[in-house]
Formats: sequence, C-alpha cells, structure tokens
Amino acid sequence: MATNKTMKGGEFLIRPLLPEELFIPEEFSEEQKMIGQTCIDFIKTEIQPRLEEMDGAKDSSVMVDMMDKAGNLGLLGTSVPEEYGGFGMDFNTSMLVAEACGSGHSFAVALSAHTGIGTLPILYYGTEAQKQHYLPKLASGEWKAAYCLTEPDSGSDANAAKSKAVLSEDGTHYLITGQKMWITNGGFADVFIVFAKIADDKNLTAFIVEKSFGGITMNEEERKMGIKGSSTRQIFFNDCPVPIENLLFKREGGFKIAVNILNIGRIKLAAAVIGAGKRVVDQAVQYANDRKQFGQSLHQFGAIKYKIAEMIVKNYASESACYRVGQNIDDTISELKAAGMSDSEAKLKGVEQFAIECALLKVHGSETLDYSVDEGVQIYGGMGFSAEAPMDRAYRDSRINRIFEGTNEINRLLAVGTVIKRAMKGELDIMTAAMAVGKEILGVPDFSTSIPEGVFGKEYKVIANLKKALLMSAGGALQKYTAEIEQEQEILMSLADMMIEIYVAESVLVRVDKLIQQSGVAGNEIAKECALVYLHEAVDKIHHHGKEVITGFATGDELNVMLMGLKRFTKIDPKNLKEARRKIAEAAIQKMGYIF
Amino acid sequence: MATNKTMKGGEFLIRPLLPEELFIPEEFSEEQKMIGQTCIDFIKTEIQPRLEEMDGAKDSSVMVDMMDKAGNLGLLGTSVPEEYGGFGMDFNTSMLVAEACGSGHSFAVALSAHTGIGTLPILYYGTEAQKQHYLPKLASGEWKAAYCLTEPDSGSDANAAKSKAVLSEDGTHYLITGQKMWITNGGFADVFIVFAKIADDKNLTAFIVEKSFGGITMNEEERKMGIKGSSTRQIFFNDCPVPIENLLFKREGGFKIAVNILNIGRIKLAAAVIGAGKRVVDQAVQYANDRKQFGQSLHQFGAIKYKIAEMIVKNYASESACYRVGQNIDDTISELKAAGMSDSEAKLKGVEQFAIECALLKVHGSETLDYSVDEGVQIYGGMGFSAEAPMDRAYRDSRINRIFEGTNEINRLLAVGTVIKRAMKGELDIMTAAMAVGKEILGVPDFSTSIPEGVFGKEYKVIANLKKALLMSAGGALQKYTAEIEQEQEILMSLADMMIEIYVAESVLVRVDKLIQQSGVAGNEIAKECALVYLHEAVDKIHHHGKEVITGFATGDELNVMLMGLKRFTKIDPKNLKEARRKIAEAAIQKMGYIF
Repeated sequence: MATNKTMKGGEFLIRPLLPEELFIPEEFSEEQKMIGQTCIDFIKTEIQPRLEEMDGAKDSSVMVDMMDKAGNLGLLGTSVPEEYGGFGMDFNTSMLVAEACGSGHSFAVALSAHTGIGTLPILYYGTEAQKQHYLPKLASGEWKAAYCLTEPDSGSDANAAKSKAVLSEDGTHYLITGQKMWITNGGFADVFIVFAKIADDKNLTAFIVEKSFGGITMNEEERKMGIKGSSTRQIFFNDCPVPIENLLFKREGGFKIAVNILNIGRIKLAAAVIGAGKRVVDQAVQYANDRKQFGQSLHQFGAIKYKIAEMIVKNYASESACYRVGQNIDDTISELKAAGMSDSEAKLKGVEQFAIECALLKVHGSETLDYSVDEGVQIYGGMGFSAEAPMDRAYRDSRINRIFEGTNEINRLLAVGTVIKRAMKGELDIMTAAMAVGKEILGVPDFSTSIPEGVFGKEYKVIANLKKALLMSAGGALQKYTAEIEQEQEILMSLADMMIEIYVAESVLVRVDKLIQQSGVAGNEIAKECALVYLHEAVDKIHHHGKEVITGFATGDELNVMLMGLKRFTKIDPKNLKEARRKIAEAAIQKMGYIF
Repeated sequence: MATNKTMKGGEFLIRPLLPEELFIPEEFSEEQKMIGQTCIDFIKTEIQPRLEEMDGAKDSSVMVDMMDKAGNLGLLGTSVPEEYGGFGMDFNTSMLVAEACGSGHSFAVALSAHTGIGTLPILYYGTEAQKQHYLPKLASGEWKAAYCLTEPDSGSDANAAKSKAVLSEDGTHYLITGQKMWITNGGFADVFIVFAKIADDKNLTAFIVEKSFGGITMNEEERKMGIKGSSTRQIFFNDCPVPIENLLFKREGGFKIAVNILNIGRIKLAAAVIGAGKRVVDQAVQYANDRKQFGQSLHQFGAIKYKIAEMIVKNYASESACYRVGQNIDDTISELKAAGMSDSEAKLKGVEQFAIECALLKVHGSETLDYSVDEGVQIYGGMGFSAEAPMDRAYRDSRINRIFEGTNEINRLLAVGTVIKRAMKGELDIMTAAMAVGKEILGVPDFSTSIPEGVFGKEYKVIANLKKALLMSAGGALQKYTAEIEQEQEILMSLADMMIEIYVAESVLVRVDKLIQQSGVAGNEIAKECALVYLHEAVDKIHHHGKEVITGFATGDELNVMLMGLKRFTKIDPKNLKEARRKIAEAAIQKMGYIF
C-alpha cells in the first residue's frame, strides 16, 4: 500500500502515512536544534522585554532596531542561499526558525514579512542580477522589505487590483500608480514587491520597487486591534518610476508569484503560531501554578486542567503536522533537483505541491493559537483582561492570523478547490477511492474484530475510516453538484474541516507511534495521551462536519445510506478523556510549562 | 403534567415548558416597547457617536457626562421604586432596558454597574433611612455608585477578602482598611458598596461608603484590553470612617448580598449582551451587503451566509431564554408578595429562585456575543482588525463578559452545584426523574412512531429526550461520586453545557410555537428555521457533552448501556441546515440587519 516515494500533496486523503515516512521534530539534528535555540534566546532577551516599548512606539525606530539586531545575528537570511549572503537552510529548518521566532508578537510579523513575502519573490523569481543586487542587502537587514498586493477593493480577490504600470515614453521605466493597503513593514521598508497591471493586462505583474525611486507617499500608521508594533501602512504610488529591469519574473506572472509566495507564507505562519502557542501555554501554566483561589492553586481545579491539556494537545498535534509537510516539501525539492530542475524552480514546485496542506495547516495553526490565547485569558481571569499581564497582547495579536495570508475561509475553500482541481486533472485519484467507499457502504459492514498490529492498530483503522467518511461525503457532493460545487461554500468549508482533522490526527498519531517504536511506551505516555485525545475529538468533529455535508445535499435513501456510512466510519471505542487530560495537564504543571 | 404554577428554578430539567407558560418578547406592551425604544434612541444618538471619545478620554469626564444625561432621562432609576424617585419597573422591563442599552459598550458597563451592583444592595437590603438617603440621588444620577468586592487575592473566591472593618473606640464608626480591585466606576463614584470583615468574622459584611468619608485613595485607571471608556480602579481604604448606621443588612450578611446581587447582575448581563449582539449582526450584515469581492457582494457567499445565520440563531435563542426567566422572576415576585412577603424580600427571593437559570444564561449570552463579534471580525476581514471599523472595539469589549459577574467557569459550576444542592434538600426532585430514566434505558426502547400533535410535536419529543440524556448523565455521575462530584469539575462543566442547551433550545422552540399558534406558520418561517437550526446544533452539543460525562466516570457494562441511552436520547431526524441557514441569512440581508 505504501511506497518509498514522498507522499504527494493531497495524497494523504487516499493512503496511510507510515511512521518511517514521517519526519518528527525530535529528529532535528543538534545543529538544527541549536539554530532554533539561538532564535528562542534572541526573542527572549531582545524582543520579549521590549514588547511594551515596541507596541507603544510613536515610530518604527524600535522595530528597525530589532530588525537590525536580527540581521546581525543572521536571522534575516536563513532561507537565502550562501552565495547571496544567507545561510541557505533547508525548508524544514526555516520552519523551525519561524516557530522559534513565533512568540515575538509584532516582531515576528515584521520578520516573516521581510524574510517571506518581502524577500522570497526575488529569491525564487528574480534574475541573477536582481538576486545579486537585492538578496545580500535583504539577508543582512541593510534593506528591509515589504510586499504590496492588497488594495482597498481587492483583498481576498487579489487579481482584481487596480494599480497600473505604464511604460514611460522612452521605454526605460514603468510608471506605477495605485493604492496599496495593509502593507506590513510599510513605514520603514526600503524595497517593495509591488503588484500592478501593465496597460490593459488582465493579470498582475510584479515589480521590485525601491523607496528611493520616488513617487511614493504613505498614510499614517494604521490603528489596529493588535500587532501594534508592526508597521502597517497604506501606500500610494504616484507615477513611481521603476526601471524595466526591475520587472519580476514575467509580464502577467504576478498572480502566480503571489499565489506561490502565499503558500510559503501560510505554512510558515502555521509554524510561527506554534511558537506563540507554546509561549501562551508556558504563561498560563505558570499563572495557574502561582494563583490561588479557594485555598488551592488554580491548576488543582479540573476546569483549569481541561484548558491546559487542550491547549497542549492542539499545539502538539499542529506541530506534528507542520514538520511533516515541511519535510515533504524538502524531500520533493530534492527529488525535483535530482531530476534536473533549478534550485528556485524546485523550491517553488516543492511548496506548490503541498498547497493543500499549507492552506489546511494555516487554518489549523491560527485557530489553535486563537483557542490557546482565549483560554489563556480565561485562566488569567480578571488579569487576562489587563494590559499589565501578557494575555491581553497575546489575545489581540493572535487574531490577525486568521485574517492575513488569506482569510481562513479563503484557505479552506482553496484547499478543497485544489483537491478537486487535481482530481479533475487526474493528478490525485480520489474518485476511485471515493467510488470504492461508495460500494462499501452499500455492502455488508465489516464486523470483523481483527485489529491491525502495533500500539495504534485500532487507531490506524479509525484514521482509515475517517478518510472513508471524507471520501464518501466529498464524492457524494461532487457527484451531485459537479462544477457547481463552487456555489456550495458551506459544504466546502465542512469538507476542509474534515481534511484538517484527518491530516492533523494522523500526523500526531504516527509521530507518537514512531516515538514509541524508538524508545518504548514508558517515556511517551503523555505524548500518547495527547495523540488519543486529539483523535477522539477529531472523530467527533468529522462526524459533525460530515453530517453538515451530507444533509446539505442528500435526500431520501441516499441521505439515509450516507448517514449510516458516516456513523460506521466515525466509530471509535470510548475513552475516558477526562483522565487523559488530567495526566497531560499534570505533566505540564510539574514541568511548569509546555511539556514537549 | 404541567401546572398553572410558575415553573420553579431548575424545574425545566424535569418538566416541559408549555407555550401558554412562556412569555415572549413579542408580548411586551406598547409602553414597554416605547421604553425600550427610548433607550435604543439614547444609545444611538448620545453614546454611539462618542465611543471613540469615550474610550480615548484621559479622565472620566465623558463618561460622567453620559451618565448625567442618562440620569436626566430617567435611565438610572428604572428599577428604583417611585417613592424613591425611580420608575419602579418590573423585572422583565428592566431586562428590556438592559438589552436596549447593551450596545453602548463602556457606557453599558458603567450604567449596569451603577444601576445594578451599585444601587440594588441599598434597594434590597437597606433600611428605610438608607433608602431615603441614597436611592433618590442614585436614581437621578446626582450620585454615582460602585461596588467594591474583588481584591487582589480574592476574585472568584469572594469570601476570602481580607479587608477589615474595625469599630472605632467611641463606637460610632467602622474604620475600613483594605485594597479592592477591578472597581467599575471607581474613578468617579460618590458611593461605594464595600465588603469587609468586622473584627475576626468569618464572613463579609457590606457597608455603604461615601467618597466624602475620607480615607480613600486610588490607583490610576487600569489599562485594559477593552471597555477602555469604563473607569476601572484599584481602591485603597485606609481607616476610612463609616458611620455604624451605614452597615448594610446585617453583620456577616455581606456574602449573601453579594451572591444575590450577582444573580441579578448575571441575568441583566445576559440581556445586555443580546443588545450588543444584535448591533453586531446589523453591522456585519451591512458590511456584507456593501463589500464586494470576486465581483459579488460578500453576502452572496455561502461561507458568509453561514456566519450571519449562526449569529442570528444564537442571539434569537438567547433572547427567547432571557425573557422567559425574566418573566418567571416577575411572576414569582408577585406570588411571594401576594403571600405577604415584603417587596424587597420578594424581589430577592424571586431572583434567587432562578439562580440556576441566571448563571446558565450569563454563560450562554456572553459566549453568544463572543461568537458574534468573532465572526463579525472575520466578515469584515482586514477591516475587522482595524480600529477604524467597529468590530475591533466590539471584539475587545465583548471579552470581559465571560470574566466578570463570575467567570463562565464559576457560573457553570454554580448552576450545576445549585441543582445538586436543591436536589439534596428535596426542593427539586431530579432523582426520581433520573431513576425513571435509568429504568428506561434498561428496558426495551420505545420504537413507537407516534408523534405528538402540533407543529413541533416531533421536536418536543426531542427536547424531552434531551432532558433524559441530561438526567441519565447527571444521575449516573452523582451516584458514582456522591458529594465528591465537586472534585469532578470537568463533568460539572459538561453538565452545565447540557443544561444550557436544553434550556435555550426549549425556550426558542416554544417561543416560535407560540408565535405560530398566534399568527400561523406563514409569517414565522424564518423564526421557525432559527428554532430548528438551534435545536439541531443543541442535540449535537448535548451528545458531545453527554459522552464527555459518561466516559468520564463509567466503565464496562454501565458505560455501554449509558452510551446506548445517550444515543437513543439524542436522536433527531436529519435536516438540511445549510438551506435553513441560507433562508435566515437572506432574510437578514433583505432587512439589512437583525431580522426580528
């Protein structure tokens, strides 16, 4: 059933993940771990003591100072190849860096805008001359970068942008005119990646624009709910003269750049929010340890234990999924390069291959962080609402993650849409699998009690069944609506949620299985409980969403058969989750923070 | 089965609500509606245009000005009897006022602190002299009130307060010393209700303290996540001399006052958040109507329709439950007065009788508002995160509602704890009912397909079954743990959630049934869809929480039998909720706001 080939994007829907295929964070090398630790130390010593100063600053001087320090340490060039002054880390190490910096609040946002959407378009799509001119300065932090895509009337619908680029009479420059908004790092960036349409083009073209080119003005800093230390501006380009050699990639190639760069942005965001989430767990556990009510520490109350455990379970699971896809991307890049593709192209294709997973994990990660900060506030009680304690900032800063890099709604639609597109193109054969499930539900149920081998034999069967539940629901909906399924966003959203839960539950389960295979059950009891709690909750959610999908399109006998099938595919032996959560919470209380 | 007597607090667990018993907001008199409209107009013209000014003010002058205007209009004296300068409205009218003012953000907080926890202790527990001295000035707004209960080390555990009251040597004064925090209206209040322990008393005593008594200092305004316009202070009492005649109620009677006043605060909060929620719906629908992406209005997207519908369903259901308990309280007060009880005592007992419902609806209402503002932010997209648009403030201001007036965790525990206490005392016979259910699950399932009469015949059967699911789960857990159930907070939390869903689902269903009985199905199609969507989702939640409870304590055969029972009691015919939600959303889009 399994092959030695790297699992392709979306393939998780139709075949099981094996422990030997999964990269787990425990397998990072000492060197990689050291890099991660360096970042964590930097955030702890240079950023976290200055959060208040950063958020309250009247201008961007504090942020620029922080970025300069990060540049000196090499943090801005992790993904940039050595020949352009960076460290040329592989993708999964850059994920580790993103996670490690993720608890830096506004700084993390500035950092990822600079190193991600600000730098990568040049790295991946630039000419050699463009790379040599810009990358060393961006990697060192001498120049800071921003990304100008969104406009007042084009948010989720990026290609509807109205900004124009007109060739100058002498043919040496494009004159860019337009209004861009929500530009992160806008206030202090030296280089902007700007998207505009040339003449009457239907599609966007990207340009590398230096602030020094002139014709650029901007509004005051936006007043925002959170990430107040992050510079966010509206930027106006007024006949801004951009040398024609600063056109990036190719005319009308901008949308492709935007899409591909956003894929990377999404999965990096998924890593970053884990770093933020773990920090919130640390703080909440410490508070629960310190604060006393009714003569007990807060952590002694079951209601608090529940929250602590859930925060940990969700973050641990999200982490398991993130580095899974990170490694998949690295492996795919290696394969493509071995097959003769250029470095840049291989990297782009590698990420594009996992566009589905990037979107799903962006949603899961950002919602996990929002869950964590919300429970963090609640554990802190009155102090959770006070600006003197850390949860206020955490709560406000977290909220943007469900909005930027594509709203979570857009990402859900995108993930399912991409699956459908690949299925139509024959790249991902979900229809055969869906039809097999369709036959199975009309047949006699498999009442065999044979249990696959291994610690998680039963659970793997559950995962396989959950995939059947999804295939059945998705297959049925597709058959009914065909291309019109686009109009059924509610169904697509539910299908996306099913996909998320399946991917994450499988990842955490296989991670723990691998850990147990490596070092036995004894040292991995808590990890095992986390995986099982996650799985049980995932089963419930998948049942819920499956029902939404099925009742959303089926009627009569079909409805009954499919609901019966859903029930069959979401069976799981009952487990005392209360006790499991208590074990997890108690381990965190002992360790005075996040466990793993 | 039903009686003509007002349903007692907690009795909803063991008997069905009949349409003729339920007060629905549509039945408010013209006069009551006019009062509500006056408040809404006041908020619209006097408060909402000044939200920015109020939140940004360096001192409390803006808030004091608003409170004075409210006082001039009579809004501060709605619950105060006419003989003390108020309007002496009944309880449910005061709920309507709370709802109408609920969209006033920080002002709503100041208003409810003044009229509720600030004024009511004197109204309900004061001597005639105290009432005559304070109530007219509080009702007119000449004096503003605050309530000083919480201390740094005593939040949820109010009776652990350390503030002391020492009798002066001449026996004329109590000298109060202590530190109070999170004091709403603290910065400008003239009168404080202060809780402290006299000498070595175990329990708190309440005092009426005037600022002019001296010995009062305070910290700067607290910096908070939201309700920034609301004054929140730490207040220090340093040998503050309080005349002995300002002791309120009786020595060591403070905790009782606190508990009873908080009951009122909770249910009023539940009403207020509905007003805030409806406003959020209005704004979100307007934005979804105005904003275009991909060539369509946002409201044309199914993902957006889903959110709009859910916001409406939850608020409509919450409203149905709120005025149900409001009327129950009024009826109980009338009955007690008819039986010879004094006005104040009858009011207190009336509310106390429904302490369970007050706690449950505080939780439901505050979580409904948090759901609404969260989806409001998401509908606004990038603008949801901007301080230029209303969702930022709505999101931040909403969050306090799950924390104050008792955290939602405390309220959940309290609600279930009160049910258990009343059951033990024989005041609420849930054990007989639970035992009957216990027998039923061991017997042959009732496969009869007979459906009760009426539009909601089937649904009433579902509600009856949901109550059985709760009784079975609660009964089993109680049998297992007896008094030790206190240590099983996770189970208590889940039982509370089951109670909430049952109470609210029943309320909205019966409301719509009554509407249909009055005016037919035709004009009430959308209301019907709301009730059904709510019910279906409630069934899912109850199944989820039931499973948490049962797997949390049962094993072996008992586990299997109970899970089977749970399945049986949470059966409901499938319904296409997607279509129902679309109908609801489309009605709101048509109406350009909240529907009802």
